[in-house]
Amino acid sequence: MTYCVAIKLDAGMLFASDSRTNAGFDNFAKFCKMTLFERPGDRVVVMLSSGSLAGTQAVISLLSQRAKGEDHGPNLWTAATMFDVAGLVGDAMRAVDTRDGKYLKQSDLTFNASFLVGGQIRGEPPRLFRLYSEGNFIEASLETPFFQTGENKYGKPILDRVIRRETSLTDAVKCVLVSFDSTMRSNLSVGMPIDLLCYKKDSLKAPMRRRFDDGDVYFTALSRQWSEGIRHVFAHLPEL
Amino acid sequence: MTYCVAIKLDAGMLFASDSRTNAGFDNFAKFCKMTLFERPGDRVVVMLSSGSLAGTQAVISLLSQRAKGEDHGPNLWTAATMFDVAGLVGDAMRAVDTRDGKYLKQSDLTFNASFLVGGQIRGEPPRLFRLYSEGNFIEASLETPFFQTGENKYGKPILDRVIRRETSLTDAVKCVLVSFDSTMRSNLSVGMPIDLLCYKKDSLKAPMRRRFDDGDVYFTALSRQWSEGIRHVFAHLPEL
Repeated sequence: MTYCVAIKLDAGMLFASDSRTNAGFDNFAKFCKMTLFERPGDRVVVMLSSGSLAGTQAVISLLSQRAKGEDHGPNLWTAATMFDVAGLVGDAMRAVDTRDGKYLKQSDLTFNASFLVGGQIRGEPPRLFRLYSEGNFIEASLETPFFQTGENKYGKPILDRVIRRETSLTDAVKCVLVSFDSTMRSNLSVGMPIDLLCYKKDSLKAPMRRRFDDGDVYFTALSRQWSEGIRHVFAHLPEL
Repeated sequence: MTYCVAIKLDAGMLFASDSRTNAGFDNFAKFCKMTLFERPGDRVVVMLSSGSLAGTQAVISLLSQRAKGEDHGPNLWTAATMFDVAGLVGDAMRAVDTRDGKYLKQSDLTFNASFLVGGQIRGEPPRLFRLYSEGNFIEASLETPFFQTGENKYGKPILDRVIRRETSLTDAVKCVLVSFDSTMRSNLSVGMPIDLLCYKKDSLKAPMRRRFDDGDVYFTALSRQWSEGIRHVFAHLPEL
């Protein structure tokens, strides 16, 4: 499984992904699901992957290879808008599906990958997209400022309660980490380390990036304080 | 969709179910998903239904009909143990599946129903079972004192944090209602009224039953206080 969250706020953007992959219950591994394409002063593009690792890795590799520009086609460095970036990711997904799909089908499998793609290109405000397996996509709006992929349900209530477009990046960081904490408690196939990337609007440069691994002091304190706080609120709820 | 929770505690048992059913997004209705079989001093059996309404209603009707004893077969009033009760529910599920299954298959459907069945029969401690569509079942244990069916994920984190076998019935009531609140915020196909039934261990009589409908004063206060409490705890979490 996987858990990824991306949020577009007035103040900037926030991306977070877990690192657990599994091929069956008896084969767990760690892979980073966050990819950054950055050219300071020009663009910051962040991708969060979920789905079959073979599929998502192939898409990222294809995008990276194309970004070298050797085939003179459009790529992540030449795209003029984030909408075009989302289109390029969709193109890469369809290319991988075209190559692998018929072989997957022989084993009753399908190309199964989805991406959260967000960032900012000079001349545009920050934008955030969610791409489906078919390569089509939707864009975050003022009313729906965040997207989740993978195991989204356990961690959604806290996002619903806290995240608004005017939420600060600091609060959004706390909220996303609490959301990961709830998810990891309930689904063992979502696991540390958590990659977190925080982008300040219009900075167009290397965003703050941080990895939270098992035993991380801040994450552990947050998790404990949240748990104690919840119990305290619960204990003071009125009785029926 | 549906959301049902049943909990077995040292102090007794708690059952709760929502009332929303839908046949497609354009056809919502309200049906009670909780059924009680009670003979004071002898037995209290509670069933929570989820799945296709045609299937669950047929199972309940068949059990009720058989409970009249006219066919002289074993039934819910004659079963000596809760294990036998769970077996009778499984038998009824299989009878409905045998009757309807092949016709459902013509439309690529399957018999889709599951039940939480719990209660107490004189001479036994309270017991709680979860029945799968196939009619087989598992029983709650000391380590896993609750079962959920339907839309279980949004409301699971609070149950995981609070419910232990030694939790009081009063606390379990609050916890279950908070769990329903989180679920209904995130999934529109789970909805009021909520039926709640609280059984005190060894009482073998009419348990406390309460229905929470839209605008219920207690539920509204609980929901507001929980929401404010969560925000307060959140606001005081340490910043990164």
